[in-house]
Amino acid sequence: MKLITLTTDFGTRDGYPGIMKGVILSICPDAQIVDITHEITPQQVLEGALTLARSTPYFSPGAVHIAVVDPGVGTERRPLAARLGEQYFVLPDNGLISLVLAEAEAQNQQVEIVHLNRPQYWLPKVSNVFHGRDIFAPVGAHLANGIPLSDLGSLIHNLQRLKLPTVQPLPGGWRGAVIHIDRFGNVATNLQAEHVQGWSTLEARLLGQAYRLPVMRTFGQGNPGELIALMDSSGYLALCVVNGSAAARMNVCLGDAIEIVRASE
Amino acid sequence: MKLITLTTDFGTRDGYPGIMKGVILSICPDAQIVDITHEITPQQVLEGALTLARSTPYFSPGAVHIAVVDPGVGTERRPLAARLGEQYFVLPDNGLISLVLAEAEAQNQQVEIVHLNRPQYWLPKVSNVFHGRDIFAPVGAHLANGIPLSDLGSLIHNLQRLKLPTVQPLPGGWRGAVIHIDRFGNVATNLQAEHVQGWSTLEARLLGQAYRLPVMRTFGQGNPGELIALMDSSGYLALCVVNGSAAARMNVCLGDAIEIVRASE
Amino acid sequence: MKLITLTTDFGTRDGYPGIMKGVILSICPDAQIVDITHEITPQQVLEGALTLARSTPYFSPGAVHIAVVDPGVGTERRPLAARLGEQYFVLPDNGLISLVLAEAEAQNQQVEIVHLNRPQYWLPKVSNVFHGRDIFAPVGAHLANGIPLSDLGSLIHNLQRLKLPTVQPLPGGWRGAVIHIDRFGNVATNLQAEHVQGWSTLEARLLGQAYRLPVMRTFGQGNPGELIALMDSSGYLALCVVNGSAAARMNVCLGDAIEIVRASE
Repeated sequence: MKLITLTTDFGTRDGYPGIMKGVILSICPDAQIVDITHEITPQQVLEGALTLARSTPYFSPGAVHIAVVDPGVGTERRPLAARLGEQYFVLPDNGLISLVLAEAEAQNQQVEIVHLNRPQYWLPKVSNVFHGRDIFAPVGAHLANGIPLSDLGSLIHNLQRLKLPTVQPLPGGWRGAVIHIDRFGNVATNLQAEHVQGWSTLEARLLGQAYRLPVMRTFGQGNPGELIALMDSSGYLALCVVNGSAAARMNVCLGDAIEIVRASE
Repeated sequence: MKLITLTTDFGTRDGYPGIMKGVILSICPDAQIVDITHEITPQQVLEGALTLARSTPYFSPGAVHIAVVDPGVGTERRPLAARLGEQYFVLPDNGLISLVLAEAEAQNQQVEIVHLNRPQYWLPKVSNVFHGRDIFAPVGAHLANGIPLSDLGSLIHNLQRLKLPTVQPLPGGWRGAVIHIDRFGNVATNLQAEHVQGWSTLEARLLGQAYRLPVMRTFGQGNPGELIALMDSSGYLALCVVNGSAAARMNVCLGDAIEIVRASE
Repeated sequence: MKLITLTTDFGTRDGYPGIMKGVILSICPDAQIVDITHEITPQQVLEGALTLARSTPYFSPGAVHIAVVDPGVGTERRPLAARLGEQYFVLPDNGLISLVLAEAEAQNQQVEIVHLNRPQYWLPKVSNVFHGRDIFAPVGAHLANGIPLSDLGSLIHNLQRLKLPTVQPLPGGWRGAVIHIDRFGNVATNLQAEHVQGWSTLEARLLGQAYRLPVMRTFGQGNPGELIALMDSSGYLALCVVNGSAAARMNVCLGDAIEIVRASE
């Protein structure tokens, strides 16, 4: 199988992802193409990086992930392709790779990164504004066709990395950050099960407000409208309103700092 | 062909459908995957059930339909797989199957339903919040690969059913319900052609208002902005504004009761 | 490869594109189906025509493009299929074909157009409101299967064409029109590089306002929030706000007239 995924901030309205698929299928006619999302907030590289980290582990070895959140398109920022373990990534050198790269390094996977500088693998005419179509889609298709990474560009070792949100200890708890707000309004932090082991109630402090939340195993344990905490599908501590939106209730944004401390019952 | 469809309330922004596709293609690499919709109103099981009934008849025998509108995820509600005639359905036991099951029974199709209780066909680690990824996607992929339904779980005969909207006779007409509001604002009822046979004008009463509408064959017979009634693409009586939104004009919601009576010309 | 694309104003919420895919795959099980967009503004035929012209050149020979923006569905307007050069188009006779047809004629490509009047290639039951499902999807699938165009209908030579936006000379510049506003708010005109050759600054006049913009090569040359002009990915002059929305700032709509004149530095 030749599997290619797409993650962009292009939206689906204007047909840009469809155009990328036309380019891919012209080069690799038997590609399976999967949309991860085209609704990254425009130019929010960190949101794109978090989405890649959440999604790509569920794809099989050999998958090629094309990601385009690219405010620097047309400038000197380099286009990259990378092999991280057994998967491939094709994307601009602006930090979008940061989380999947950090994960690969943490797992001691083999890492190989090239600066895409061989125009013979691109569209003949390259615009200054749509490298998703002109560079990343054709390179991804060539990778799926089996062209070796080293043919596509020159090996590099330095690249842009985002400053990633960290977890810091606090008296009785932790200081972290909001790393995902999903369409239901669930607010995921970068804390994991180990941080709240054995807690039955917690206090969350953000934006000058404090909230008391029971720590539950499922939505079904809470009552409709109740604010609860649980471990989300990626293994992160999330603040949720049962059948509602915690993001709306707490007026929170991606990247906001958050303090979580153990509360008495 | 191994054809799998997806119907969820996940939206497309967060990449959840993409993750499900990664899981499916890891198990069944040559699956054809079709999105029916990911924009069911969050947790509106009836809307999901109506969408399945409207869409799945257009797919070929052997198709596997995965549907996830699942407010009870992680609770005792059972995961199911069903064969209805020649198609397969994989979904939570919360009534989502009600309409396609009622249709299969009405047509005397063979029906076989299992409680999914064989974790060897799931992802190794099952979360409490994303069974679409952890249970329904892998089971759907195994079904598409030809694993028999009876291997995936234990046969059951009782399951949750929704109370479905009915049509009741009224003096000079019928009492029914709004069963679909589409993106154009067309308002479909559960009345069919037989209920308004030979009518040229009707009165629709809902939410304390009465509207007079000509019964037409096509949008083209009306004038822009005119409120008309016609038979929609599923064979249901719909109230429509030509080049506009009847839902907005009448401020109507899915499930609202509606009375339709014959009017004089 | 049997490649079929879809361009509609159906949205993705109601499952209509999914239903079309069910119909296509029942007739042509090994079709590759690509969504160009389903978010054409409802019933805006010109927007659909512009989208086809922007997208379809990136698909390979033999591709079948199904397009449905169809306010006249169910009336006397004819369903069409066309071969333009090496690609196929299946769509209503309402002008949707205008731009790709004009382009094919400009390139002296072979053009063959039929009126779809052979119901044996349609679904058995044809509604008055959803020819995307009942006529265009099955005809597109039969074309992908290799059924000759001439089997699907009768050759015709007259068809509906839209009045396309033109470029007119002005003292010191040009009068054109807005032909695309994308999700980022970039405002594309129908002027091309030849019209602004050597200009470093321009004045744009629309809706009674005048704006001064530097002509740049990339977004990266401007400052965040700055209004700039550059050539977009289709080769058209676009007005853009760096990391923002020019459409919002200038309150502009598709089709609005615009005057572009050279400005002194």
